[in-house]
Amino acid sequence: MISETDILKTFQHLVKRSDADESIIIGSGDDAAVINTKDKCLVHSVDISKINSHFPRNFLPNDIAYRSIAIALSDLAAMGAYPSFITIGLTCDEKKIEWYERFSKGVEESMNEFNFSLVGGDITYGELSVCVNVFGYLFDKPLLRSGAKPGDKIFITGQLGHGQKGLEDFKRKNDSISLEKFKKPTPQFKKSKHISSFASSCVDISDGLIKDLTSICSMSQVGAKIIYEDIPKLRGIDDLSYGDDFELCFTTSDKNIKQLNKDDYFCIGEITSDKEITLLNANNEVKLEKDGWDSFK
Amino acid sequence: MISETDILKTFQHLVKRSDADESIIIGSGDDAAVINTKDKCLVHSVDISKINSHFPRNFLPNDIAYRSIAIALSDLAAMGAYPSFITIGLTCDEKKIEWYERFSKGVEESMNEFNFSLVGGDITYGELSVCVNVFGYLFDKPLLRSGAKPGDKIFITGQLGHGQKGLEDFKRKNDSISLEKFKKPTPQFKKSKHISSFASSCVDISDGLIKDLTSICSMSQVGAKIIYEDIPKLRGIDDLSYGDDFELCFTTSDKNIKQLNKDDYFCIGEITSDKEITLLNANNEVKLEKDGWDSFK
Repeated sequence: MISETDILKTFQHLVKRSDADESIIIGSGDDAAVINTKDKCLVHSVDISKINSHFPRNFLPNDIAYRSIAIALSDLAAMGAYPSFITIGLTCDEKKIEWYERFSKGVEESMNEFNFSLVGGDITYGELSVCVNVFGYLFDKPLLRSGAKPGDKIFITGQLGHGQKGLEDFKRKNDSISLEKFKKPTPQFKKSKHISSFASSCVDISDGLIKDLTSICSMSQVGAKIIYEDIPKLRGIDDLSYGDDFELCFTTSDKNIKQLNKDDYFCIGEITSDKEITLLNANNEVKLEKDGWDSFK
Repeated sequence: MISETDILKTFQHLVKRSDADESIIIGSGDDAAVINTKDKCLVHSVDISKINSHFPRNFLPNDIAYRSIAIALSDLAAMGAYPSFITIGLTCDEKKIEWYERFSKGVEESMNEFNFSLVGGDITYGELSVCVNVFGYLFDKPLLRSGAKPGDKIFITGQLGHGQKGLEDFKRKNDSISLEKFKKPTPQFKKSKHISSFASSCVDISDGLIKDLTSICSMSQVGAKIIYEDIPKLRGIDDLSYGDDFELCFTTSDKNIKQLNKDDYFCIGEITSDKEITLLNANNEVKLEKDGWDSFK
């Protein structure tokens, strides 16, 4: 039987790396971490990834770690923030130390990719679940869901459908770009930074475009008209209620559009004042109409 | 079937309270919270409380919330910090909205008692587990585990054994002070504040006095000699490896002892230079001797 101490040892070298981060005054190993935020506003979010809900049962431990952390980090990108440090609350019933070593490897890969410190965590016995706490700082102003104005254009940062197809490909053991994206989602920090000074609202597409856009509309007290054909999506994917893509959906006024090149940012519609969300086809015919926001929730 | 939105509504009035906290720039409802730490060092810890491990199966939802939060806050007290805000990652398979309403009631009770804001969280379906993220600021300097010096006196802040007896009383349906303390542990903020300028090391007794004191000795590269009869403990409790009391164990040099009144602070021994932990009876006979620290882990 492995002990908690054995498990914690598999993370020790990662926590040790926070010694090089001068803002981390006390890292892990004590009762709590102490961080000098240096008069910057702290941005914090928490996200739970659970076996069978957020990743399939036979997902590899390094992929579980990487995916759970990347998904949590995506909330920072959606807020116009970059990561600085994280803590992990791991619930796990694995009995082999190799599992934890591989999980730790996935944490390390994500640290190398996204440049943050691991400053602590907790571990308890139970069905596999990863509670990731992410902390960061703003690029510029916070990107809220509540700032969209009628007339603003609606953009998304990439093709939708990889989340859905990636999971299907995993089940079919079919290697694909979508599977890679499912294993290693990319929080959109670069694009978040680029738009952070001029986007009027922003959300990451984790629950599906329609639901996430609804959340912008609801919190901004506006509606939206989107053109189905303008939404970049994988062939065969037509369910806009499927999430897990972690692209950003944001709004901005006409005057800023010149800052958004067409290869990276896709205009899919416009904010309206009527508090309805309407999905049109290319001939301006209504494909889907929802009266009010609550019906989407 | 209740929806995630229904569940989140049971916490909305609590999150709303953070509007009154001027340091919370954006509370919950968006992708992440934004907090102005105002150039103060942030202290952060994460703690998971799991059904059957940290509380019994038939524990009431308000008690689950209160106890989980109080235990997590105890790490801040151990660090010489007071609470400011928290987030909760709740995994739960309860299907009745009343359960969440009562859980929310327990969160509210702890907010009233310990004065912090709730700024966000996540909820997912699964076996009951509460991942509590606590955030606070230092009273003075951080109280580390690593500052104990040979000759320092070792103190604890209260009687041990309530954690163990409280759980037994819960199982026997026996109302008692211990049961009340088990349901509502008290993070020792007042005493933490009092000692924070002069304690040389500190830990909260969550894993048992011997194990927690070992952690101070290990991180301070020292040993300890403690007198069994000087340890205040409930009658019938003699297992010093049982935790869950959440009293503080701290060390300080002789010159500060006059600041510690004997009703609130109990001297149980002294730090030594020999890297061993020795438990003596009143006649200075060895009751328990451990050579080195690892054997305790």
